Amino acid sequence: MELKVQPIDIKVGKYKVVLNTIDAKELGVYEGDRVRVQGHTTLTAIVDFTEDMIAPGMIGLYHEIKEQLRREWTEIVEVFPVDKPRSTRIIRKVMDQEKLEKEEIYDLVKDIVEENLSEIELSSFLTSTYINDLTDDETEWLTRAMIDTGDKLEFNTHPIMDKHSIGGVPGNKISLLIVPIVAANGLLIPKTSSRAITGAGGTADLMEILAPVEFSAEEVKEMTEKVGGVLVWGGSTNIAPADDKLIKVEYPLSIDPHCQMLASIMAKKGAVGADNVVIDIPTGLGTKIANVQEGRKLARDLINLGDRLGMDVDCALTYGSSPVGRTVGPALEVREALQVLESGKGPNSLIEKSAVLAGMMLEMGGVAAKGKGHDLAIETIKNGKALEKLKQLIEIQGGDPQVTSKDIIIGEYTAQIMAPTNGYVIEFDNKRLIQIARIAGAPNDKGAGVQIHKKHGESVKKGDPVLTIYAEKKDKLSEALTNAQRKSPIMVEGMLLEQVQSFKEF
Amino acid sequence: MELKVQPIDIKVGKYKVVLNTIDAKELGVYEGDRVRVQGHTTLTAIVDFTEDMIAPGMIGLYHEIKEQLRREWTEIVEVFPVDKPRSTRIIRKVMDQEKLEKEEIYDLVKDIVEENLSEIELSSFLTSTYINDLTDDETEWLTRAMIDTGDKLEFNTHPIMDKHSIGGVPGNKISLLIVPIVAANGLLIPKTSSRAITGAGGTADLMEILAPVEFSAEEVKEMTEKVGGVLVWGGSTNIAPADDKLIKVEYPLSIDPHCQMLASIMAKKGAVGADNVVIDIPTGLGTKIANVQEGRKLARDLINLGDRLGMDVDCALTYGSSPVGRTVGPALEVREALQVLESGKGPNSLIEKSAVLAGMMLEMGGVAAKGKGHDLAIETIKNGKALEKLKQLIEIQGGDPQVTSKDIIIGEYTAQIMAPTNGYVIEFDNKRLIQIARIAGAPNDKGAGVQIHKKHGESVKKGDPVLTIYAEKKDKLSEALTNAQRKSPIMVEGMLLEQVQSFKEF
Repeated sequence: MELKVQPIDIKVGKYKVVLNTIDAKELGVYEGDRVRVQGHTTLTAIVDFTEDMIAPGMIGLYHEIKEQLRREWTEIVEVFPVDKPRSTRIIRKVMDQEKLEKEEIYDLVKDIVEENLSEIELSSFLTSTYINDLTDDETEWLTRAMIDTGDKLEFNTHPIMDKHSIGGVPGNKISLLIVPIVAANGLLIPKTSSRAITGAGGTADLMEILAPVEFSAEEVKEMTEKVGGVLVWGGSTNIAPADDKLIKVEYPLSIDPHCQMLASIMAKKGAVGADNVVIDIPTGLGTKIANVQEGRKLARDLINLGDRLGMDVDCALTYGSSPVGRTVGPALEVREALQVLESGKGPNSLIEKSAVLAGMMLEMGGVAAKGKGHDLAIETIKNGKALEKLKQLIEIQGGDPQVTSKDIIIGEYTAQIMAPTNGYVIEFDNKRLIQIARIAGAPNDKGAGVQIHKKHGESVKKGDPVLTIYAEKKDKLSEALTNAQRKSPIMVEGMLLEQVQSFKEF
Repeated sequence: MELKVQPIDIKVGKYKVVLNTIDAKELGVYEGDRVRVQGHTTLTAIVDFTEDMIAPGMIGLYHEIKEQLRREWTEIVEVFPVDKPRSTRIIRKVMDQEKLEKEEIYDLVKDIVEENLSEIELSSFLTSTYINDLTDDETEWLTRAMIDTGDKLEFNTHPIMDKHSIGGVPGNKISLLIVPIVAANGLLIPKTSSRAITGAGGTADLMEILAPVEFSAEEVKEMTEKVGGVLVWGGSTNIAPADDKLIKVEYPLSIDPHCQMLASIMAKKGAVGADNVVIDIPTGLGTKIANVQEGRKLARDLINLGDRLGMDVDCALTYGSSPVGRTVGPALEVREALQVLESGKGPNSLIEKSAVLAGMMLEMGGVAAKGKGHDLAIETIKNGKALEKLKQLIEIQGGDPQVTSKDIIIGEYTAQIMAPTNGYVIEFDNKRLIQIARIAGAPNDKGAGVQIHKKHGESVKKGDPVLTIYAEKKDKLSEALTNAQRKSPIMVEGMLLEQVQSFKEF
């Protein structure tokens, strides 16, 4: 059928067209079906219906498809109904719990990356893998397909180190310490991080206070080769792009299927060419991993998947029921991390967690003897080499290397939450703490967040400040305060619970 | 946050708004989150993101929400982030295989009807129920909720009769015979039907050739009270509207979860106030129900659900591996049905299937003695009363009651498929037959379709016509012909395999 083009200047993230129901019936297509649109170029698009927005005889082309066709623009296109892509039948197999072949998974991931699948189809795929986990083989292929459909870093020097923290713990600013410690000891660590979606600040949100974080994969490689490491936002690279597209659908469903979590983590590590990976698995109340048993299972699965992909993975089960350090929110966390690097002093939970994880990497990378990694990490903080390395990272990423903790601007509006009664510090709800920081403006308002004053086991008197809320905007402060006053917040310091080593080391 | 309104005149079928990512970050919302939009009226909407389509400080309002706010238009609206509706947590429970409470299912269905759920959320719900079927209790509540969230017919006279055929069999025009037979014998049968989505013609597509089929629930009731029955399109009434919204998401996934199929059928019967229901379950190659065992299970489940809802349900397992009658496509089917009613003669598969099912209803409705329903149905065809009743239906729906089979206009372009060799008739692929009729233009081109010449067991000689393809457009004919020539089509006549009676009658 020949139809006249009507551009619709809206980005929908997919190749989509809108047909009048009259033409759609004539073509024999229904909403969600595919058509081939043929001008000078040929593209396949998902069909939407309208009864009035597009007149009969016209075809509405959303931004993405319009852009593709624009190179050789034509007024009239030929439109044919075509079968759904093979990956829709593959998704049906996942629903039916049939095992997938390697090439089927590659087809599926390719269609995810190329935006050939609708949200309905992606949601069905993710829901199916949430209900029935993929097998180890399928998870490996999913990970490999995610790696292969994006940019990959290939270094000439080895080993390449990497780390990842499973989310859910407030104030987990440890990458700002770990990456410089590892790089200062001569290892390469091209660290890509995320921005917060549900949190109060991802590592990328934090680092952005010190330097730009958006770089291509090629730039990440070059910078890492020059100074030993980077702290960049993974979303700006084209590393494992399928993952971001899946997260966009997982988020509204509030799910993180086990196999997808494994593939998501390990694809990013595989794509940067990591040889040795340390994974921080916070467990406990309010984290993603409810208890140590579940944490051990995840650790085994990560180690197993790493083994299949040729990466040595060590996992650390860490105490995640309370914040790391005493600050939550981008600027507060950056200031706290800089203070530790500048003075060698600070909250035990922050220094210890960073040193243990960095130490594991120093040992894996062969620059510390077995059992000596932690001490070397602490020494790298105390002797100022970690700070010096962080400044090199800041400089190569285009920030100001002269920055000190005093330069970090914190929100000017503050309010304190006082202990409502005499007594001892009891547990804190991570989710509430993040919630309060978010209401105060984090992570978008970099200066917003929460400072925690009272530690585990300490006695407090009625009226003692327990928490200070910071905000950049007055109304956000008062909203956060009102919210916080509903519950008196208490904290317990973080500590390493257990270390799970790679199978290879047994 | 105060934002300036920018209307977007596109219907998206939901309350949706578009925010610039800058404002979205400031509000702390992400794609798929909800915001409350407050002008003179207050509405909750699902958030989409844009980086360029809507400027910072503006909010794009899609058609549906714009319409709602328009009554008291305002330039500036206040926008707040709000929690997701409770039904998103209910969907998560379905994913986790937790049992739902009655009011949870009502909440969910209410949100489905009111378009408060995104396609991602609906897809997850349907995929979950496809993988893990709902319990009998949950299915009953789902059905009741579907009934209660739409219009209901309440008749003073009883019993009210209804029928339903599970889809997948080409040429299943039996409602055009059954409804007049039942109504001619003094029973009320307010029959709502569907249009074809994947088929070559639904009953509503067929009846539309004879009379308008779009009426409100109230009109359906009035017409039924006047002439004993109607043949209308269910989609134009507001009967069980949740069902249509779920089908829109099931279609692209090519799934029909068991509990949804049960609820979909029985909600429509419950909403029209049916007391006695006959359900036709075609089984065999190419139908939705692969074999008799599966058909019996579905029959038991339908009877059980009917019992819970206060409806007597009888099911007939029918032979579904080949078409009913000898025509596929709206006009051809209407002509064939009229010919049977006019002459009392025609394909055995069509007359027998209609008489058996109508006979079951006549017995259930108490107007035929046990075992005498079939004969009364045949008599009602032969003595012309069924034809007379159909004409009354046509007239009350606004069609021409003088219509005869000769008036039905069939596509002017025809092509014959000949037997490629001497031999006997063997099986036919239903899906291919429907496909050929659709390529020829059905159901949109009413005159398009397929006439079947050779019946089961008959010998054919090379060159005998096996099939005639009809089309309204020359190019569609040649496309269908090319497609059909890939395979020589053969048919087997339909017959009743087995009758499953309601538990109550045992």
